[in-house]
Amino acid sequence: MKKEIKIFSPATVANVACGFDVLGFCLDNKGDEMVIRKVSEKGIRITHIEGYDLPYEANKNVAGVSALSMYENINPDCGFEIEIYKNIKPGSGIGSSAASAVGSVFGMNELLGKPYNKTQLTYFAMKGEALSSKSEHADNLAPAIFGGFTLVKSTLPLDILQIPKPSELYATLIHPQIEIKTSDAREILPKQVSLKDATAQWANVGSLIHALHTSDYKLIHRSLQDIIVEPFRKQLIPHFDDVKFAALEAGALGCAISGSGPSIFALSQGKETALKVENAMQMVYSKTNIEFNTFVSDINIKGIKILKS
Amino acid sequence: MKKEIKIFSPATVANVACGFDVLGFCLDNKGDEMVIRKVSEKGIRITHIEGYDLPYEANKNVAGVSALSMYENINPDCGFEIEIYKNIKPGSGIGSSAASAVGSVFGMNELLGKPYNKTQLTYFAMKGEALSSKSEHADNLAPAIFGGFTLVKSTLPLDILQIPKPSELYATLIHPQIEIKTSDAREILPKQVSLKDATAQWANVGSLIHALHTSDYKLIHRSLQDIIVEPFRKQLIPHFDDVKFAALEAGALGCAISGSGPSIFALSQGKETALKVENAMQMVYSKTNIEFNTFVSDINIKGIKILKS
Repeated sequence: MKKEIKIFSPATVANVACGFDVLGFCLDNKGDEMVIRKVSEKGIRITHIEGYDLPYEANKNVAGVSALSMYENINPDCGFEIEIYKNIKPGSGIGSSAASAVGSVFGMNELLGKPYNKTQLTYFAMKGEALSSKSEHADNLAPAIFGGFTLVKSTLPLDILQIPKPSELYATLIHPQIEIKTSDAREILPKQVSLKDATAQWANVGSLIHALHTSDYKLIHRSLQDIIVEPFRKQLIPHFDDVKFAALEAGALGCAISGSGPSIFALSQGKETALKVENAMQMVYSKTNIEFNTFVSDINIKGIKILKS
Repeated sequence: MKKEIKIFSPATVANVACGFDVLGFCLDNKGDEMVIRKVSEKGIRITHIEGYDLPYEANKNVAGVSALSMYENINPDCGFEIEIYKNIKPGSGIGSSAASAVGSVFGMNELLGKPYNKTQLTYFAMKGEALSSKSEHADNLAPAIFGGFTLVKSTLPLDILQIPKPSELYATLIHPQIEIKTSDAREILPKQVSLKDATAQWANVGSLIHALHTSDYKLIHRSLQDIIVEPFRKQLIPHFDDVKFAALEAGALGCAISGSGPSIFALSQGKETALKVENAMQMVYSKTNIEFNTFVSDINIKGIKILKS
C-alpha cells in the first residue's frame, strides 16, 4: 500500500465566455504540486505550505476543508498530512482554490485504494471551493478532476459531462496582478437578465458544444461570446476591452474573462497563433503600470495527475 | 427546365423543452403538400388552397409572403402559381405557418435551378413566418428546410447548425383542438428571468446538444427540461401536467410544449415506447371533452422534399 503521493493539480478556466457557472477547461502547464501522506495519527493536518501565505488550520484551508469532507465520509483508521506547493496565485481567476480543493481529495483517494469516483471527488472538493467563493459550484473543479472541457449540467445532483477537445486548440492566459474576490465578482452580477439575452446565451452554449464535438474552429469563434456576465465583470478588470481586441486581432478564436477574473483567457487554433496572442496581450499591459504575467498552454485532457507515488 | 414541382413540407417541433427560440426538429409523417408552377405571367399567385381556410392574396398568405420575398430578390422573367394542400392545422404548434413559408420558396428555388442555399431559403421563409407570429424567428423553419435537429445560433446573421440525431429517437405528438395564437403565447412570457434559472437552462441546452452527439438517451432525458417558458405557457394548455406525467410514466425521455402550443410532444427511445406514450397521452385527453388527435413520427432527417417534378 502506497504511503505517500505527489500530485500535479492543474489550473483551470471556468465559464469559457458563454458558459457562466457551467463550462470549464483544464490547463496543462500551470498548477500546484501537493504531497499527500498517509499517517497513523488520525485527522487531517497541513504540514507544509510554499508559494503563498495560506492558513495551516485544516478547517480554514480550502484543501483542508475538502479533505475533511472526504475524511468524515469514509472515516478511515488513519490520518493524512498535506503539503502544498502553490504555484497558482490565489484570486487569479484560474482555479487556484479549485486546484487546492481537488488535490487533497484526489491524493487521499489514491492512497485509500480509490474508493470514490471522479464525480464523488468533485462533491468533496465543492466543500473546499465553497470556503473561498461562498457558494458551492464545480465549474473549476470538474475540469481539474476530469480534464479537457467539462459541462456541469447540475450541481444537485452533481452531473458532469466531458466534452471532446479539438486537437489544435490552445489557450493563452494573461494575469494582471490585481485582486478580485470571487464573492465580489458574483455580487456585481445582476439577479435578473432579459429573456432575449438569455436566449442568445443558450444558443451560444449549444453551438459551442456542437463546435467542440465537430472541431469547427470558426464556430468556436462565433460561439465564444458572453453578453450576460462580461459587461458587468469587465468593469473590474482594467484594459479588458483592449486585451480582447488585441487578442482577436492577433487571430484568437475568442477572448473572455477567466472565471471571475482578473485573468483573461483566449483560445486559438494552433500554438503559433496562441503565442502571437500572448504577445499581443503583453503589448497592451506593458503600456500600463500594472504587473502581469502570461502563458500559453495546451488543453490538458488528463486533468489532475500523479507525479510520484 | 422543370415547369412544376410537387413537394412535401413537413411539420416541425420548435423549442424542444430547454431550447426556447433556438432548437427544433423535423417530423416525418405529418406535413403539407404544395404544387409550385412556373408560368410566363409575372408575379406570385395562390391558385388553390385545400384543407384549411387561408387567404388567397399573396401578401396576406404566409406562403405568398415568403414567395414574394424571394421573388423580389431574384426578380425573374416569369411568375409562379402556388397550390396549397394543407394538412397541418394552423395554430396547432407544429410549424404550420413554417411549412407554408418554406414550401413556396423551396419549390421556386428548385424550378429556378437552385440559385439559393438552404440558409438563404430560411431567410426568405422568415418573412412569411413573421406574418403569422409577428416576429422573425427560424426555429420551425430551420428543421423544415435542413431536416433533423437544428440549432438557430442567431437570426441576424442567420446561423443554423445541424445537430446529429440518435437513431432510435421517435416523437409522439398530441394536438388538443384548442387555439393558441403564437403572438399570445409570446406575450405571456416574462421579459426578465433570473440569472440562476437562465444558467440552469443553458446547462440543459449544452447537455442536450452533447447528448444528441453521443446518442446518450439517459442524458437526453435529463436535459429535456424547461424551467423558463413552460411554467408560463402550460397555463394555456389544459391538462398539460397530466399529459406530461403520463408520457414520462409510459417511458418517454421527455415531454414538453411543441413550439408555442397547444400541441405537446414527447421524445422516446424506440418506436414501441413512442406508441405507448401515444396511448398514455390519449388516455388523459379521452377523459376530457376536448377534441384531440395524436401521432407518432420518426425524426425526419431529410426535411422538405420533392414528391414529383
